[in-house]
Amino acid sequence: MKDHAAGIGWIGLGAGAPAPAAARFGQKAALLAEAAGLGLPVPPGFVLAPDVLADPAATRAALDIGLARLEAETGYCLGCAENPLLLAVRPSVEGGGGGVIPAILDIGVTEAALPAIAARRGERVARDLLRRLVQSYGATALGIEGEEFEFALYDAMKLAGVESETELDPADLADLCRTCLRLIEEEAGVSFPQEPRAQLDGAVAAIVKLWTGARARTRRVARGLPEDAPLALIVQAMALGIGPGVCGAGVAQTRDETTGARRLAGRFLEQAQGEEALMGLRTPALLTVVERLDQGLREPALEERCPAATEALLEAARALEHALGDAFSFEFTLDDGVLHLLEVKPARRSPRAAVRIAVELAEAGAITRDEALLRIDPAALDQHLHPSIDPDAARDRIGKGLPASPGAASGALVFSPDAAELAAAAGRPAILALIETSPEDIRGMHAAKAVLTVRGGMTSHAAVVARGLGTPCVVGAKDLILDRAAGEIRARDGRVFRIGDAVTVDGSTGEVLAGAVPTVPPEITGAFARLMDWADAARRMGVRANADTAQDARIAHDFGAAGIGLCRTEHMFFKRGRIAAMRRMILAENEADRRDALAELLPMQREDFIELFAQMAGHPVVIRLLDPPLHEFLPHGEADIEELAIALGLSPASVRARVLELSEFNPMLGKRGCRIGIAYPEIYETQARAIFEAALEAGARAGSPVVPEIMLPLVSAVRELVVLKEHIHAVAEAVRAERGAMVDYRVGVMIETPRACLRAGEIADAAAFVSFGTNDLTQMVYGLSRDDAGRFMPDYVARGVYAHDPFHSLDLEGVGEMMRIAAERARAHMPGISVGLCGEHGADPASVEFCEQAGFDYVSCSPFRVPIARLAAAQAAIHARRAGSARDA
Amino acid sequence: MKDHAAGIGWIGLGAGAPAPAAARFGQKAALLAEAAGLGLPVPPGFVLAPDVLADPAATRAALDIGLARLEAETGYCLGCAENPLLLAVRPSVEGGGGGVIPAILDIGVTEAALPAIAARRGERVARDLLRRLVQSYGATALGIEGEEFEFALYDAMKLAGVESETELDPADLADLCRTCLRLIEEEAGVSFPQEPRAQLDGAVAAIVKLWTGARARTRRVARGLPEDAPLALIVQAMALGIGPGVCGAGVAQTRDETTGARRLAGRFLEQAQGEEALMGLRTPALLTVVERLDQGLREPALEERCPAATEALLEAARALEHALGDAFSFEFTLDDGVLHLLEVKPARRSPRAAVRIAVELAEAGAITRDEALLRIDPAALDQHLHPSIDPDAARDRIGKGLPASPGAASGALVFSPDAAELAAAAGRPAILALIETSPEDIRGMHAAKAVLTVRGGMTSHAAVVARGLGTPCVVGAKDLILDRAAGEIRARDGRVFRIGDAVTVDGSTGEVLAGAVPTVPPEITGAFARLMDWADAARRMGVRANADTAQDARIAHDFGAAGIGLCRTEHMFFKRGRIAAMRRMILAENEADRRDALAELLPMQREDFIELFAQMAGHPVVIRLLDPPLHEFLPHGEADIEELAIALGLSPASVRARVLELSEFNPMLGKRGCRIGIAYPEIYETQARAIFEAALEAGARAGSPVVPEIMLPLVSAVRELVVLKEHIHAVAEAVRAERGAMVDYRVGVMIETPRACLRAGEIADAAAFVSFGTNDLTQMVYGLSRDDAGRFMPDYVARGVYAHDPFHSLDLEGVGEMMRIAAERARAHMPGISVGLCGEHGADPASVEFCEQAGFDYVSCSPFRVPIARLAAAQAAIHARRAGSARDA
Repeated sequence: MKDHAAGIGWIGLGAGAPAPAAARFGQKAALLAEAAGLGLPVPPGFVLAPDVLADPAATRAALDIGLARLEAETGYCLGCAENPLLLAVRPSVEGGGGGVIPAILDIGVTEAALPAIAARRGERVARDLLRRLVQSYGATALGIEGEEFEFALYDAMKLAGVESETELDPADLADLCRTCLRLIEEEAGVSFPQEPRAQLDGAVAAIVKLWTGARARTRRVARGLPEDAPLALIVQAMALGIGPGVCGAGVAQTRDETTGARRLAGRFLEQAQGEEALMGLRTPALLTVVERLDQGLREPALEERCPAATEALLEAARALEHALGDAFSFEFTLDDGVLHLLEVKPARRSPRAAVRIAVELAEAGAITRDEALLRIDPAALDQHLHPSIDPDAARDRIGKGLPASPGAASGALVFSPDAAELAAAAGRPAILALIETSPEDIRGMHAAKAVLTVRGGMTSHAAVVARGLGTPCVVGAKDLILDRAAGEIRARDGRVFRIGDAVTVDGSTGEVLAGAVPTVPPEITGAFARLMDWADAARRMGVRANADTAQDARIAHDFGAAGIGLCRTEHMFFKRGRIAAMRRMILAENEADRRDALAELLPMQREDFIELFAQMAGHPVVIRLLDPPLHEFLPHGEADIEELAIALGLSPASVRARVLELSEFNPMLGKRGCRIGIAYPEIYETQARAIFEAALEAGARAGSPVVPEIMLPLVSAVRELVVLKEHIHAVAEAVRAERGAMVDYRVGVMIETPRACLRAGEIADAAAFVSFGTNDLTQMVYGLSRDDAGRFMPDYVARGVYAHDPFHSLDLEGVGEMMRIAAERARAHMPGISVGLCGEHGADPASVEFCEQAGFDYVSCSPFRVPIARLAAAQAAIHARRAGSARDA
Repeated sequence: MKDHAAGIGWIGLGAGAPAPAAARFGQKAALLAEAAGLGLPVPPGFVLAPDVLADPAATRAALDIGLARLEAETGYCLGCAENPLLLAVRPSVEGGGGGVIPAILDIGVTEAALPAIAARRGERVARDLLRRLVQSYGATALGIEGEEFEFALYDAMKLAGVESETELDPADLADLCRTCLRLIEEEAGVSFPQEPRAQLDGAVAAIVKLWTGARARTRRVARGLPEDAPLALIVQAMALGIGPGVCGAGVAQTRDETTGARRLAGRFLEQAQGEEALMGLRTPALLTVVERLDQGLREPALEERCPAATEALLEAARALEHALGDAFSFEFTLDDGVLHLLEVKPARRSPRAAVRIAVELAEAGAITRDEALLRIDPAALDQHLHPSIDPDAARDRIGKGLPASPGAASGALVFSPDAAELAAAAGRPAILALIETSPEDIRGMHAAKAVLTVRGGMTSHAAVVARGLGTPCVVGAKDLILDRAAGEIRARDGRVFRIGDAVTVDGSTGEVLAGAVPTVPPEITGAFARLMDWADAARRMGVRANADTAQDARIAHDFGAAGIGLCRTEHMFFKRGRIAAMRRMILAENEADRRDALAELLPMQREDFIELFAQMAGHPVVIRLLDPPLHEFLPHGEADIEELAIALGLSPASVRARVLELSEFNPMLGKRGCRIGIAYPEIYETQARAIFEAALEAGARAGSPVVPEIMLPLVSAVRELVVLKEHIHAVAEAVRAERGAMVDYRVGVMIETPRACLRAGEIADAAAFVSFGTNDLTQMVYGLSRDDAGRFMPDYVARGVYAHDPFHSLDLEGVGEMMRIAAERARAHMPGISVGLCGEHGADPASVEFCEQAGFDYVSCSPFRVPIARLAAAQAAIHARRAGSARDA
C-alpha cells in the first residue's frame, strides 16, 4: 500500500504534506495543490503519477487510497445514494498539457444518484448532469464522435422548440439522455456504466490509453510538448457550475496580457461546466465593467452580477502572486456565487507585460530581483526598443523575408539610396528596397525609414548595418521580385508596387505589408527602466555600444552604454562631401597626393571625433582605424566611373584601371584592415592625428582629459601591431610638439583572425587591450562568408548540420574555443589586460553568457540592443554566482 | 703568455694540435690548417683570433709568439740579413671573406734584406718584391689609391719601352720603387717602414682598421656576409711565385662546376703572386689541355708546362675530398714548379653538380649517405625536374615576374586558352599570356607550353595550377602591359610582342625572354637517381602526389610517388565534352534534371577513375569530391551566356539570373566544398558511384581489389561528414546490389578550416583518415586570400611583417599550431588514424620538416615536386633521428 501511496499527490487534502511536484505530477496538479495549500478554494482531490497509471493494478489500488481519503474528508462518497461524490478526471502534464485530452466531468452521476442530487439542486440539474456525463464519457472514454451527441442535443432543442440547452426541461433532458445512451450502445457496442466506480475506472483507463495514441502525440507536438510527455491524472471533487444562484464556468486572466497591469479579464458562462465558456455554444459574459465598456457591450459583466466572485478572483490572484512569485490565469467555477478554482496556470503575457509583472513581483517581495531578471528573455526586450506594428492593425502581407532588424516603419517605396536621401530631404519617409546593399548605400540606408532586400541573410551587409542604425530591416524576401529598372516590386500574388507606393516593413517578423500600417512607439520607462537598473547592479561585465556617429553615441548613451566598444571609422568617409576626397586619395598616384587628399579629410574627422568624445564624456571610446578594402569606396558602374574621372580631372580609362587593380576575388580575405595601414601609413597617421587633436580639444572643453583607445583591425601577426604602434606614436609626438600638450592614448587589437587568437600572448605584450570581432572570426573559423552564408544556412540549421547560425549566436565549440585560447594566452602574458567582444554577438544572450564565463571585461553591441546586452550580462552574472555558490556548497 | 697563445691557431705548425676552428679563426685558416695537417703543401703560419686583434697589446704579444715558432720551424727570421723571413697577411673570415680586404704580401722585404734575396733569386726578383710590397702596403695599409701605383708602373714600362712588367730590369724596378716611396710620402705623409716588424705590425693594424670601416661593411653585405662578421688574420710564410723555373700564381676548380665531374679547371699566371691570375694584367694560361682545347686556345696549358703541378693539384683535391668530405677549389702558387696551396675553399657547384659531388663522396666513403642527403637543398632539385634554359644561351629579357613554376619553354604568344588549344592541336608550341587565370582556363593551360600572367602571386590560380601541371609559369609580370584586345604585350622598353611572336618563359627565374631561347632537358638518372634511392631508404613519411589525371599519375609514379594524396575531381568537369553537361546540371531547375545531366557525366568520370586506379595500381588513391563553387563552371561574359542559353534551349535571362544567383562576394568562403554535397547530394552520389564502379572494374582488371579513399573538402562540422558518409554508404550498397560485388572504401576529411582543426577529435571518430589542405587552412588562419595576397605579400615579407610568405612555407606559429592541435585531437580519439598533408606545402622542406616532427604519415605534392618532397622527408627523418640520439645521449 505504501508504494501506491507514494504515487499519489494530494490536492487540498493531507494538510502539511508537500505539494505534488510538477515534474512528476504535472503543472496543473502542482499549482492546484499549491493554491489549495494557500487556503484558496480548490475542490479537493488527488493526482496519480505516470508510473502508477502505467500499471492497471497499481492504478486501482491508488484510486482506492485516494477515494478513501477524499470521501473521509468531504463526507461524500462515490455511489452513496445519500451523499453521492461527483468527480472530475483531468490530465496533468509537466509544462501544461491543456487541450490534448479533454477532462471527463460529473463522474458518479447515475440513475441511482439522481434523487439525492435532485433533492439538493432540483430535478433539472440532476438530469442535466447525467446527460452531460453520458455525453462526455461517450465521447472521451468510448471514442464516439462528439458531433453525434451535439446533433442529438440540437435535435432535442428543436423538438422542444427552445433556443438554448438551458431551456430544456427535465423531461427533455431525460429523453436526450436516453438518445445518448442508445447512441453509445449502437456505436461503441457497450453500455454506459451505471456504476460510479466503473465510470471512474473506465474514465481513467480511457484517458491513459488515449494519451499514448497517435492523435494525442500529434497534438502534443503541435502544442510544443514532448511527444512522449508523461501523463498524470487528477481525480477531484466536482464544483458543479449548474444549479441555483450564480452558477457557471469561466476563465480569468488576472494581468493585462499586453501591458502586464493587474486587470481582470475573461469570460463567464452561466450554467456551464469546464471549458464551455470558450466553446461558443452560448454568448458568455465578460468579467468586469471596464472590460465590458471597453468592448461596448451591454450584457452585464460578472462583476455586476456577482461582485464577490470577481473580488475573490482578484484576491486569489494576489495571494498566488505573493506566494508563488508569478502571475496566473484561472479556470473557475461559481457554485451559487462561490468561487472554485479548477485550473491555475501562469498568465499569458507579452514581452512588455512580462517585464512589468516581474518587476512588480520583485517590488512586492514575491521574488528576488535576481529572479525577476532571470524571468525575462533578453531578446524579447527588442519589443521595447523599436516602434512596432499596432497589434490591432490589419496586416495585408505581400511578402516575407528574415526579421533582420526589429521595428516597423512605413513609407514610400524607393529603389536607390539617392532616392531615399531625396525623400528624407523632402521630409517624406521612404522604404529603401534593393537586391542587396553595399557600403556605398550607407547614406541611403541612413536616410530610409526601413530597408528591404530580396537577397542576403541575417548577417548580410544590409542586416548588420540596419541593426547598427536601429533601422527596421527585412532581408532575403525571396518571394518578392524586385525589378530596379522598372522601379517596381512584384508580389507572388501578382500585385505590383511601384516607386512611391506606400508599404510597411516589419523587421520584427520579417513581413512586408501593403500600405502604411499604424505603429506604436518604443517605451523605455517604468518597469523596464527599473529592470535595467537592477540588471546594471547585478552584472559584472561592462556593456558598450558599437557607435560610429555622435547620433549613435547619443542613442547608446540613452540606452545605457558605458562607452563605445567599436567606432567604425569607415562610415565617416562615406558622408556627403567626404567621399570625393576619399576617392581622390585612393586614386592618387603617390604618397604626396594621398596626403593632400587626407589633409582635406582631417578637419572633418576631427570634428566627428570631438562630437563623439563629447557625447561619451568620461566613458571609454574605442576607435577602429580604417578597415574595408579601398575598392569599396570606389564606384563600379561605368557611368559612375566616368563621372568620377571628370570630377577628378582624370581619364576614365585610368580610373577604370585603378578600380580593376584594386578589385579582389575575396575582399573579406583581401587587402583590408591593418594591411591598409601597413601599405599606406599616411591613412592611419591621418586618422590618428584627427583622434589626438580631437581628444585634446574635447578634453579642453570638458575640463578633463580624454583618453582615446585606438583599435587595429584584422591583425594576423604581432609585427603589424608593432609597426603601426610606432607610426601612431610618432603622430602623438608630433601633435604634442605642435600643441604643447600631451595626449594619453591606448593602442589595442581587434582579434578577428584565428592566427591572432593563437598569437594573442605576444600580441598582448604590445597591446593595451584586445577586443574580439566575432563576426569576422566566425567567418575565418568556419571558412564561411557571412554575405554568402544565407544561401545555405537555413537549410544547414534546419537539417542540424550546424546546431544554429553561428553568425547569430556564437559557435562555442569552435569560435568560442579560439576565443578562450586567445583570452588565456593574452592574460598569461599580460594579467589584467582588457578583453572585450564587439559585434553582433554582443547582444546574443548565449554569447554573452560565454563572455561572462570566459571572464571578459565587456561586450559591445549596436546601440539599440544595449539594453538586451545589459540584461543578458546580468543573467550571466547571476548564473555564474549561483554556479559558484553551488560549487562552494 | 698562455692567454695570448690561446688566441693563436697554427697552420702547418705544432703537429698534433687541433686545427683552428672555422667559427673562431675563419674558414680560410681552418681549411688551410686542415690541408697542412694532411701533409699538403701549405706555407706554414699562424692565425690570430678576432678577440686578440681587438686589443693592440694582445696582438703584439701574439705576433711575438707566432713569429717565434714560425722562425724556429722554418729557420728563417724576420729582419735577418741572411735568412730573411717573408710573410703574407691574409684576412680569414667564417663563411669566407675573400675580396673584402686584399692580403698584404711580401712583408719582410726591405732594402737591407735585398742582398740575401738577390743572392737566392737574383737582383731582379729582389727589386720586384720590394716594389710589390711598397705598392701593396701603400695601397692597403696606407690608403693610397691603387691607381696611382698603376700609373707609376705604366710610366715605368713606357720609359723602359717594354710591354710587360716582367721585362722591367732591376734598375727600372729600383726607379719605380723610388717613385712609389715618394708617392707614399707625398700622399700619406709618412715613410714606408724599412723595418720588417714595423711592416708586419702596420699591416695587421691597418687591415683590422679597414675591416671595421664603412667600405668593408658595404662590401661584406654585398657578398652576403654578416655586416659585423668577425675578422681573423693569417700570418704565413710567403710562397713567392716569382723567380726561376715555373713560378707563378693560379686558381683551380677541381670539379666541373656544372656537372660535378672531377675535372681540373682554372688559370695560372707566371711570375705572379696572389690573385694576379684573375686581374687581367697579362693573359694567364689555362690549367689543362682539355680545357685549352675546349676553348680553342694555343697558349700551352700549365699541364703542358709542368705536369707535376697539375698532378699535385688533383692529388691535393682527392686527399681533401677524402679527408674533409667535400670538393674544393684552390688558390695556389708554384715556386720553381713546386705547389703551394694558399687558399682552400669549397668548390663552386651548380645544384646538379652538388648532387653528383655528394653522391660520389658518399660512395667513396668520405661522407655518410645521411650526410650526402643533408648536403642537398631539396628546392634545388627543381633544376633536375624541368627543362631549363641553356646556360650558354643569350638572354634578351623583356620583363620579369615571379618564378611561379620552374622550367623554361619557348613558343608563340597567344592570348586566350582557345588559341593555346588550337596551337597545340596544330602541333605548335604556344605560350599562354593572360591578365590572370581562372578555372575555365585549365584546358588552355594544359595545352600551353608555358603560362605568363601579369597579375597574381606565388599562390595565385595560375601559379598553383601550373605547378600542378609541371608547366613553366611566370606570374605577376607587372612591368609588361598586356592588351588582350589588341593582342599584344608591351615591354617597358617600348618593344611590342604580338600574337604569334616567339617568346621564352623561364619559370625558374621569373624572366620573360624575347625569341625562342634554347633549353636543356631534365635528367633523373645517375647520381640523382641514387640520391633518391638513399632518400627513400632514409625517410619515415610517405610521399604521395596531387594528381588529377592518369597523365599526372604517370608522372607522379615516374617521380617516385607512392600513391595519390589528392585527386581534385573538378578538373574532370572542365574537360571538353563535359563542361556542357556540367553546366546543364548546374542550370537544372530540379533534382531530376540534375540527375539526368549527372548520369551523362557518370561514364566519363568512371573511365577517368579506372585509368587513375590502373596507373596507381596497389598504391592508395585519395579522391576529393567536388570542391569549387558551382559558379566557377558557368560562363560570365554576356556573349558566352547567350551561347550557353541557346545551346541548352533556355532564355539568356534565365541563365543570367542563375549566374547572378550563384555569384558570391567571397567565393573562397562560399557555397563550396562539402557544402555542395550537402545541398545537392546527387552530385556527390554520382561521383561516389563513378568511383565505386571504377574501383570494381579496375580491381577486376588488375586481379586485386582497389580500395578508393574518398575525401570530403572544407568540412567545418562533424555532421557534414556524418550526413555525407550516409549518402556515400547508400551508393556503395546500391552498387553492391547491382553488381553483386563489394567495394571496400574509406571516407576521410580534408582539414581546411580552423574549426575542423578544433573539432578534429570528433571528426576522427567518424573519419578513416584526415589530410590537411594547408593552402585553404592558411587562408582561414590568416584571413587572407591566396589570390589577393600578391598585392602586399612581397612588401609584407620584405618589411618583416611576416617572416615569410605563409603560402610558400607553412606558418608554423599559427597554421602549424592549428595542425598540431588537430593531429593530437584526432589521434587522441582514434590512435593510428592516417594523417597527411596535401598541397603546395608538401614539397617545401621547412613544411615537410614540420610534418615529420608532428608525426604525419605522408605529404602529398604536385607530381613534378615529388623528388623534392622525398629528399625533404629524408632530411627531416635524419634530423629527427639525430635529435633523438642527442636526447638519448
